[in-house]
Amino acid sequence: MKALEERILKDGKVLPGHVLKVGNFLNHQIDTPFMMEMGKEIARIFEGDKPTKILTIEASGIALGMAAAVAMDLPLVFAKKKKSINVEDDLYSTIVHSYTHNIDYRVVVSKENLLAGERILIVDDFLANGCAIRGLMDLVAQAGGKVVGCTTAIEKGFQGGGDQLRAEGYKVESLAIVDEMTDHSLVFRK
Amino acid sequence: MKALEERILKDGKVLPGHVLKVGNFLNHQIDTPFMMEMGKEIARIFEGDKPTKILTIEASGIALGMAAAVAMDLPLVFAKKKKSINVEDDLYSTIVHSYTHNIDYRVVVSKENLLAGERILIVDDFLANGCAIRGLMDLVAQAGGKVVGCTTAIEKGFQGGGDQLRAEGYKVESLAIVDEMTDHSLVFRK
Repeated sequence: MKALEERILKDGKVLPGHVLKVGNFLNHQIDTPFMMEMGKEIARIFEGDKPTKILTIEASGIALGMAAAVAMDLPLVFAKKKKSINVEDDLYSTIVHSYTHNIDYRVVVSKENLLAGERILIVDDFLANGCAIRGLMDLVAQAGGKVVGCTTAIEKGFQGGGDQLRAEGYKVESLAIVDEMTDHSLVFRK
Repeated sequence: MKALEERILKDGKVLPGHVLKVGNFLNHQIDTPFMMEMGKEIARIFEGDKPTKILTIEASGIALGMAAAVAMDLPLVFAKKKKSINVEDDLYSTIVHSYTHNIDYRVVVSKENLLAGERILIVDDFLANGCAIRGLMDLVAQAGGKVVGCTTAIEKGFQGGGDQLRAEGYKVESLAIVDEMTDHSLVFRK
């Protein structure tokens, strides 16, 4: 999505450790009309895959998830991060490793909000190594649903998580893929 | 908002300890078209107050914040909950007590996303004792902005936080106010 690449170049900030800060339009302050345009682009890419529900993860996936859900007229579910490791009967649960914070955390979704047979489109703000998306996929599998695709605003292509999912046959479409990143330049995938 | 009251009666579940679960349409799974209708109602109530930005708090305020931001064509900022107590120069920070979880947590917003002179409408999913909203108000005050109003989907009127804010002169409008709540009945404020 050309407009997103231009916006990243204009407003994004690269910090040490391959951190790309886009908090002034994407995941802290949200440029609402621009986010809704991203949702329309997701709808255009995935309408043929006929998702019946959008699944994202708190907190920074929710705004893009809403934008996509509005554009596709679908319900949105956001998985929650839990500190406690108690297993609860009414939740599907999985463990996700965060390389950013170097911790494992538990991600849950209520069983009544993820059902067998549902066709799930997974949405998140960032895709790097793919751990969060794999955790969401695991929740969908536990419920007996089907992942029809994954989409994120910004994929760090150089971290390989997206390409690995593609190699496994998943439809993964990110609105901007950064293939190279230094303190001074970003190279987007053509 | 009559439609919200009806939806709470239809889909809400009362659990021990005055917990009202509305996770199948409001704050876990989101009924997207219905959420967007709530956003339009918020726009109708607050358009005369001329907010320039909407402020909410992660995670469950974000969806309603987006709905209101879309309806009013405004940017949305969501404050973040932090575990670390490190003070960082680029953040406004405050402490909020959660009665639900009986902990204090730190809430922050980047200084570049909350500016002097901005007219802020605060949005959240629930209002009970008002601690979260007061924390957001404190962040706005630190930035030199002005709170033009507060709105939530569901206010637990019997906990008093909303009425206390009204007594202090704030415009607080919740889309549904529950004044009495037992395991078997809910009474909404007229």
